[in-house]
Amino acid sequence: MQSAVEKSRSAISQAVVAAIRSAWPAGTERAALHEPWFGGNEWEYVKECLDSGWVSSAGKYVDEFERRLVEFTGARHAIATVNGTAALHVCLQLAGAGRDDEVIVPALTFVATANAVSYCGAVPHFVDSERNTVGLDPRKLREHLDAVAECRATATVNRRTGRRIAAVVAMHTFGHPADIVTLAEVCREFGLPLIEDAAESLGSYVAGRHTGTFGLLAALSFNGNKVVTTGGGGAVLTNDDLLARAARHFTTTARLPHQWSFVHDQIGYNYRLPNINAALGCAQLDRLPEFLERKRSLAARYKDAFASVSEIEVIGEPPGTRSNYWLNNILVADAEQRDEVLRQTNEQGIMTRPVWTPMHRLPMYAACPRGDLATVEWLEQRLVSIPSSAFLGAARG
Amino acid sequence: MQSAVEKSRSAISQAVVAAIRSAWPAGTERAALHEPWFGGNEWEYVKECLDSGWVSSAGKYVDEFERRLVEFTGARHAIATVNGTAALHVCLQLAGAGRDDEVIVPALTFVATANAVSYCGAVPHFVDSERNTVGLDPRKLREHLDAVAECRATATVNRRTGRRIAAVVAMHTFGHPADIVTLAEVCREFGLPLIEDAAESLGSYVAGRHTGTFGLLAALSFNGNKVVTTGGGGAVLTNDDLLARAARHFTTTARLPHQWSFVHDQIGYNYRLPNINAALGCAQLDRLPEFLERKRSLAARYKDAFASVSEIEVIGEPPGTRSNYWLNNILVADAEQRDEVLRQTNEQGIMTRPVWTPMHRLPMYAACPRGDLATVEWLEQRLVSIPSSAFLGAARG
Repeated sequence: MQSAVEKSRSAISQAVVAAIRSAWPAGTERAALHEPWFGGNEWEYVKECLDSGWVSSAGKYVDEFERRLVEFTGARHAIATVNGTAALHVCLQLAGAGRDDEVIVPALTFVATANAVSYCGAVPHFVDSERNTVGLDPRKLREHLDAVAECRATATVNRRTGRRIAAVVAMHTFGHPADIVTLAEVCREFGLPLIEDAAESLGSYVAGRHTGTFGLLAALSFNGNKVVTTGGGGAVLTNDDLLARAARHFTTTARLPHQWSFVHDQIGYNYRLPNINAALGCAQLDRLPEFLERKRSLAARYKDAFASVSEIEVIGEPPGTRSNYWLNNILVADAEQRDEVLRQTNEQGIMTRPVWTPMHRLPMYAACPRGDLATVEWLEQRLVSIPSSAFLGAARG
Repeated sequence: MQSAVEKSRSAISQAVVAAIRSAWPAGTERAALHEPWFGGNEWEYVKECLDSGWVSSAGKYVDEFERRLVEFTGARHAIATVNGTAALHVCLQLAGAGRDDEVIVPALTFVATANAVSYCGAVPHFVDSERNTVGLDPRKLREHLDAVAECRATATVNRRTGRRIAAVVAMHTFGHPADIVTLAEVCREFGLPLIEDAAESLGSYVAGRHTGTFGLLAALSFNGNKVVTTGGGGAVLTNDDLLARAARHFTTTARLPHQWSFVHDQIGYNYRLPNINAALGCAQLDRLPEFLERKRSLAARYKDAFASVSEIEVIGEPPGTRSNYWLNNILVADAEQRDEVLRQTNEQGIMTRPVWTPMHRLPMYAACPRGDLATVEWLEQRLVSIPSSAFLGAARG
């Protein structure tokens, strides 16, 4: 027999199922979390790319894709990469993260954020997120740095570990902008470069300025689940001319320009986006405004649909920001409720999932330095991601 | 006024131009080193991939591409990766190369071979190549290991540096198989795993067995300049079931299988080939037998064409092997002759280039340990790569 509490959990889960479906176009019963949407100029551009013979790491679509990312984000430079993880790695390397340094990252993020730190030979150092933005908490960051960081003439050092703190990475989680202005202030106070993990936030703004243009460098992602996709792909954004040049150099095996000689002047990477993937990206960018509009409309419908389910909160864009609503999330009462919602929704063809396991609970990062992570723990027990594909939302009539 | 020697250099370079053109289809005057060739099923497969919506890191073309690589090479497993550099990195990591280890690689290779060692935190250690195969010299390898290596109970150690030697990487340069059987013997003697850098050797065999199936693990590349291309792409080959599973895990962010949870149990990478690139690869594999036939025919024509230019030697497949003739090369008298050939050919629209700058002469690898590199130095002054696209050769009538 079900207890009263279980009954209530089950009833709430049923209400979640009903609310989700009521936000969708009439007749839609099942949906994945994200499905890419083609049917614009994808075929035309990709075919043109094949016909030209230029499918690999040079070609006009890579240039065009970068030009349009610059135009869209307002960043001074965009350097297309093979995926978002590679873009993050480039950002960290160029920010100076090296062997045995530490880099501060949110504990609540996709594992790539922490992994990119490891690729530099550095150690991730985890700080809490705030409930409001689901992103790195500037107040907790300041408190924690006050407690552990020592600003020396040449470096900011973690006095507990003796290691240099090389940078701070803020992630715009689910597409909702982190409090990047305050985070930038804290980073300035402590002499730390700020990197933005904008993998999820193409089309998200803070006070009208695109995410990824506040820090020294930022990483975008165009994985299959993102607002626009290139199959696999990413980009580095920066306003710094020298860093942009360094990013291009670093992502193309650090080869020096010469008509025929192969001379490389540092340990570089094979990180450039192939032209065929960039062709797909250009076609997707053609539709980005429509995708964003539809995602916004879906988020608004979710908000309305859940208004009557008092036990559930829908995560919305923080005040003063405009979110791309990449991934809609609800907050439920506790971990038991979360698991029941996950079970019922997935059983009924509504793909949902919990947020990522926080980084400090993964075996390879369990021993890393960290601050108090109370909000991350709280969020992790309560967040449920719900279907967010653009085609589930409406276009402006 | 030209000296007699200069006149002779110029005359030889003119003879090279004439010989190269005489090997090409009538009327062809200009050619790049490599141009990909589409026009088979590329468009059909890529369109099918777009229509399915599965363009990213999962999808039927990735499975199909891997299945067909297994079928073609005879390796037990193939794991498709985002490029050949990533594949090499995976091979080295799985072979156990770690921080402050050394890995023996040929000094004469593309920089990715050495870079992949660096990505593991290890140090490349350079050994000479042989004139015959242009690949790692097993006799020089044995002599050098005899001189520097100490086989301890748990590891083979470089007694000069005190560092563990973790593996040996042999590269099948230009597609010509290295003396992989003897290299495997030497590696066995010294307890070292053998990795094959088969980036250039898809379709190359030693005694009927495909390159990349002799070592513990091997890396293939499908960059735009390779025999078949996926835009950017690569693959890991192995006959070992556990290593294959580990390669899949390592290339997919080490995520543990679960319907919705994100748990990762090691520092993994985002290294999987996107489905859209695999679709391109499947179409290219449809034509691989024809491409190989045409490349063979082109190599035979070059051999004939240069028969009358006594100052020039054409590099052919080593006895007992079958080369894919990925990249045809000639050997000239000296560095001055090489530079004059490069100048005249490129001026006349025939793209040629010298071999890569040997690794020990690149600034970031200049201080790395090395053996005697006399043959690499000799080859580097004399090798000139000449146009090798499949469409320059004839298909069997």
